[in-house]
Amino acid sequence: MTICEIAQLLQIECSSPVEYPITGINTLKEAEKGEISFLSDSKYEKELSTTQASAVILPFAKAHLLPEDVVALISEEPYLMVAKLSKSFAKPIKSSDIKPIIGCESTIYPTAHIENGVKIGSGCTIMSGVYIGSDAIIGDNVILYPNVSIYRDSCIGNNVMIHAGTVIGSDGFGYAHTKLGEHIKLYQNGNVIIEDDVEIGANTTIDCAVFGSTVIKRGSKIDNLIQIGHNCVVGEHCIMVSQSGLAGSTTLGRNVVMGGQSATAGHLTIAPFTTLAARSGVTKSIIKGGVYSGFPLMEHKLWLKLQAKLAKIL
Amino acid sequence: MTICEIAQLLQIECSSPVEYPITGINTLKEAEKGEISFLSDSKYEKELSTTQASAVILPFAKAHLLPEDVVALISEEPYLMVAKLSKSFAKPIKSSDIKPIIGCESTIYPTAHIENGVKIGSGCTIMSGVYIGSDAIIGDNVILYPNVSIYRDSCIGNNVMIHAGTVIGSDGFGYAHTKLGEHIKLYQNGNVIIEDDVEIGANTTIDCAVFGSTVIKRGSKIDNLIQIGHNCVVGEHCIMVSQSGLAGSTTLGRNVVMGGQSATAGHLTIAPFTTLAARSGVTKSIIKGGVYSGFPLMEHKLWLKLQAKLAKIL
Amino acid sequence: MTICEIAQLLQIECSSPVEYPITGINTLKEAEKGEISFLSDSKYEKELSTTQASAVILPFAKAHLLPEDVVALISEEPYLMVAKLSKSFAKPIKSSDIKPIIGCESTIYPTAHIENGVKIGSGCTIMSGVYIGSDAIIGDNVILYPNVSIYRDSCIGNNVMIHAGTVIGSDGFGYAHTKLGEHIKLYQNGNVIIEDDVEIGANTTIDCAVFGSTVIKRGSKIDNLIQIGHNCVVGEHCIMVSQSGLAGSTTLGRNVVMGGQSATAGHLTIAPFTTLAARSGVTKSIIKGGVYSGFPLMEHKLWLKLQAKLAKIL
Repeated sequence: MTICEIAQLLQIECSSPVEYPITGINTLKEAEKGEISFLSDSKYEKELSTTQASAVILPFAKAHLLPEDVVALISEEPYLMVAKLSKSFAKPIKSSDIKPIIGCESTIYPTAHIENGVKIGSGCTIMSGVYIGSDAIIGDNVILYPNVSIYRDSCIGNNVMIHAGTVIGSDGFGYAHTKLGEHIKLYQNGNVIIEDDVEIGANTTIDCAVFGSTVIKRGSKIDNLIQIGHNCVVGEHCIMVSQSGLAGSTTLGRNVVMGGQSATAGHLTIAPFTTLAARSGVTKSIIKGGVYSGFPLMEHKLWLKLQAKLAKIL
Repeated sequence: MTICEIAQLLQIECSSPVEYPITGINTLKEAEKGEISFLSDSKYEKELSTTQASAVILPFAKAHLLPEDVVALISEEPYLMVAKLSKSFAKPIKSSDIKPIIGCESTIYPTAHIENGVKIGSGCTIMSGVYIGSDAIIGDNVILYPNVSIYRDSCIGNNVMIHAGTVIGSDGFGYAHTKLGEHIKLYQNGNVIIEDDVEIGANTTIDCAVFGSTVIKRGSKIDNLIQIGHNCVVGEHCIMVSQSGLAGSTTLGRNVVMGGQSATAGHLTIAPFTTLAARSGVTKSIIKGGVYSGFPLMEHKLWLKLQAKLAKIL
Repeated sequence: MTICEIAQLLQIECSSPVEYPITGINTLKEAEKGEISFLSDSKYEKELSTTQASAVILPFAKAHLLPEDVVALISEEPYLMVAKLSKSFAKPIKSSDIKPIIGCESTIYPTAHIENGVKIGSGCTIMSGVYIGSDAIIGDNVILYPNVSIYRDSCIGNNVMIHAGTVIGSDGFGYAHTKLGEHIKLYQNGNVIIEDDVEIGANTTIDCAVFGSTVIKRGSKIDNLIQIGHNCVVGEHCIMVSQSGLAGSTTLGRNVVMGGQSATAGHLTIAPFTTLAARSGVTKSIIKGGVYSGFPLMEHKLWLKLQAKLAKIL
């Protein structure tokens, strides 16, 4: 697809002198030559001047901030335009002709479905009903319990154990909204990376990244029925207890503990060694490790004090 | 099964002069000639006089409200009676001899299981481990990701995407209770209807209706690990964020947004364009759209004010 | 594995005069001759003098409490030692050569996977994508809906219905922690027992016990997306509504009702006939049945009063 074809699809005027082919969509920071990017949030404005993207969808008022050799596609709804465009660049479900490569002493149950392009290490057990999507990479000594679904491009490290029914790499929940209240899907092109020694419980869901990767770092342990949104990073040796959740793009430092049914909003950073008590709800980044409770969140000691005071007003 | 056989099964005295055959159970309002109905909640009393049902299970004191040609089966525990009876009318898992009909350019993975009576449109991808129950109808360009389970009689529209592990049409959570504290299952005979352009995340559950349909209307987007109870109606272009839930028979108007881990009680109506903040819990119907928070629910502005006041009492 | 080999693995000094073979790990109370046990919590100290275990891992200061014929393996981190040892005694995924035994008039769908050693009663329906692990026992008239995963050694009673995607017997969430913040898995050797007439909804997860059994007693009804931790006991005729959760080792008495999104901490006992309102969070055992709400939990009446007072401070 060329820049002009993209402009035509989005009904944007295109002043590009050349029929430059575009190979993908990416963020301003990560985009390479040949990719298209967008500015939908002014906090990324400073990345306009150094972007390597070949074209950028952005509002008229910001176009002058682009380097001279980057094509500006002018829209007052750049996020909506990117969402509409994203379908054209969505990866197909099957995209490889290379038969799966399976390491020695790995057991694949007969009803498991392994797509082309997959690599599985040695000593793995891939149980019944497991699905592994195109080009996923599975390390050594991995156990995938029955009916686990691994979407395309996922990378699973060594000694990882994933319990039954868990879904890795499902689409992040991202939509642009039209003025009529319709939601236009932003097709997700990123993946999920799960590092070594991670264990994930049953019926948990970890969404893939929009661009880039959702990452679960080495040694983290994730319980049942947990939601981890797109582009989250779970640090080394974290503990997430059942029914907790992370909204998109939140980062947990190492050794964070999240109690049962606790949750965070999106785009937050939680300091290493933070403990979030059961049911706590985090709406702001946590700079300093400690024990926190409640919704709104406060230091656990304060929460206990508040509850004691509330008991007295009765 | 005739009315007298039903009476015998339920150990109710039957005064029906004729051996009228009964073909199903339904609500007072929806029942047609040949069906049996019941009165378990006095708020439906006004529907007795106009019901088309051939027989109604109801308390002695209400029997005089029935039209003359409707047989009264007298019980002081009509809901329990209906539950006991419902097993006799439960639909079998397999009920059709007609081989599935699959549209052109649809891909069915080898381990998918499609029951008889199913119709699948064109351009669909039905991935590994998917189950589609008897007589379900799937539109065009539908993607069912791995290990999705669609129960019998479900209707899925066009351009619907359902992510891995999600369950559509599982039995609603409905029981009548005996005096000894046992729970008698009310077998669910309704279905789930999902309209066009709906996307549903991973490991979400949408229960079928007791009678009639649970409906997800056009363009709604439903995230991972969400519970939608029997007989709910989700309006057009709603957004439900991960781990939120709707108890049975609740209706969302169009463009309602439910934040993460928010929930509603059953039998409520939520006004169009309502936004429920993360974690909010709704126990009463919402008449007027707006932004609401907290549990108990209040206007979001008030909730913020309350939290500020609470912070001060410390 | 002998006691001395265990000591060597754990780098503990072993003074055992004999090469006694050890067959398993168990609690002080349940251990039999030939098993090894441990003391990680001083509340179990009183069980040292009567344990039947052949060896016990425990701190130096408690070693004198052991009977003379029990070998003491001295460690100041006994729980960590047991976790490290547990992998050596973990049951393999497949462990039986006996072909499954399937009762008359039971239907097994072609893509169901039944391991060796399984016994299935009569009149069962085992649908597509179901997995039943080694040595599991399934009673009569059981329906396992599509993509249900039953881990090894589970026992399912008669007339049990388990909806699609539910996972029975996944590993409990148990880890010992090193001084460097790593989590060492305690391999779970127990099972899940589900008694007669239980119904379990879709995408629910019930973990197996560390030692012994997680038990769901007769007639209980469990909704969708519920978490039940290792070693819980759910009493007769309980009702658990969607998205509720039980942390490990909690016991519900008979006819307990848990509302939607309610939860309990671990190691609690909830009195029979207790009702926990939606969203309630239980952190202490409940001695007396009644209706409770809130987090922290209080009598429902008090909770209503508290909310009324809070509304007034605005």
